[in-house]
Amino acid sequence: MTDADFEELTLKALGSSTPRVWSFLVTMFGDLALAPEARLSGATVNALTAAIGIKPEATRVALHRLRKEGWIESHRSGRQTRYGLTSHGRSETKAAWPRVYGTSSSDHPVYFVLENPSEPVDQARFPQSAATVQIGPRSFVTTARATDEHQLHVPLDSNGPLPDWISEKLCPPELQSASQDLSRRFEYVLRRSDFGALSLLQLVALRVVVVHEWRRLILRSSAFPEYIMPHGWKGPDCRDAFATLLDHLPVPNLSTLDQDLETG
Amino acid sequence: MTDADFEELTLKALGSSTPRVWSFLVTMFGDLALAPEARLSGATVNALTAAIGIKPEATRVALHRLRKEGWIESHRSGRQTRYGLTSHGRSETKAAWPRVYGTSSSDHPVYFVLENPSEPVDQARFPQSAATVQIGPRSFVTTARATDEHQLHVPLDSNGPLPDWISEKLCPPELQSASQDLSRRFEYVLRRSDFGALSLLQLVALRVVVVHEWRRLILRSSAFPEYIMPHGWKGPDCRDAFATLLDHLPVPNLSTLDQDLETG
Repeated sequence: MTDADFEELTLKALGSSTPRVWSFLVTMFGDLALAPEARLSGATVNALTAAIGIKPEATRVALHRLRKEGWIESHRSGRQTRYGLTSHGRSETKAAWPRVYGTSSSDHPVYFVLENPSEPVDQARFPQSAATVQIGPRSFVTTARATDEHQLHVPLDSNGPLPDWISEKLCPPELQSASQDLSRRFEYVLRRSDFGALSLLQLVALRVVVVHEWRRLILRSSAFPEYIMPHGWKGPDCRDAFATLLDHLPVPNLSTLDQDLETG
Repeated sequence: MTDADFEELTLKALGSSTPRVWSFLVTMFGDLALAPEARLSGATVNALTAAIGIKPEATRVALHRLRKEGWIESHRSGRQTRYGLTSHGRSETKAAWPRVYGTSSSDHPVYFVLENPSEPVDQARFPQSAATVQIGPRSFVTTARATDEHQLHVPLDSNGPLPDWISEKLCPPELQSASQDLSRRFEYVLRRSDFGALSLLQLVALRVVVVHEWRRLILRSSAFPEYIMPHGWKGPDCRDAFATLLDHLPVPNLSTLDQDLETG
């Protein structure tokens, strides 16, 4: 595939905006170099960012920022600098892993919770592990189980569709649009890509783009099960297309990639 | 039974306060004279109120008030005035009849309802036939079925006990106390009464007292099913004792009662 063809493909995959470089690097390290000893050479990082039109200077600034924030660390070996996730960056990546790479969304029960309106407002809150959205005064929709006997805590599972004003708080209209947009972009990439014609670098760059776009969408959404989400949310379609795309775009062997870049 | 013994019994049955006379008359007519042609003579009304210590003057004032309010009407026959329910009084009595005389409370499902907090507040309300209590801002517990797709409307049936602050709104502590008090009074009357030793007038007066006390309690409570009421609510105990008491205190034949008073 020519560089121009590839550029068009990645532009379509990325939609209306080039990703923030540091965020793209977070995806790249989390996707390609999650293992404790995994490293990406500076050359590889630059080649992958350059493949989607990011300038070396911008990549250097982003690498610097991520090192300062303790997300990645550099390792010198001879004349080369290689980069890997810190244990902090690795544990944050792992925490998000099930939502990004998991094969389906949660099927947790969802509850409506009402706090006692005459209690002081600074009450115990919901655990961070739960998806929780406030929908009105002292009123919440959450996947957290009942812990406080003073809260009304009733399951929403077996009921009809939620009123629109509630499901739009669980998944706002702009997020629904974003999911529809990503679903269209993933369909486009699946339809237009001749994956066999891509170079190894192109394959890997496209993989990181795809992971990045999906990761951004799914981590913007609250982890409610799909049955409670509005119809406009196309997360499940995106997840299916994502899984198919990853089948075409497997994780590379990093030393093969490094070698490929050196010789290529 | 001596008048003094009967007076002690009715005082115990009535608890801490003599009933409001007009309210006692509403019970009396509703219980003894619900049939369209049923009449109570002035003499009978006076004898029954006098039996529980109400002065003739107070009875006259209450009869006047109830006539003015269109609840009862008077019928002259010779020198006697006889009283009966108006059709208004009869239909109001019939509306309350199932809750007062019914053998069990409703087993309607109960729902929690939340209105959209960003909607204007003057929205459609719940039907009058439903038991409904507001428990917080835009939040209700009701037996009304869902009618408005903009409301969150979830059943409370299969859940554990409600938080105290909610069940106390469905049945406030003072009403729980009143039910405990009435339960004790009914037990006392059942234990202490030698029903066979009561005169017909005493039997009927005691019946009206018992109906009146139960009617006041049950009509002060919201018609929620018992499973959702707090443990302190002794309505079911009162209802059982009420049924047993009515077995001992049957509805009299009104002309027998009139005759009994004339000859006695």
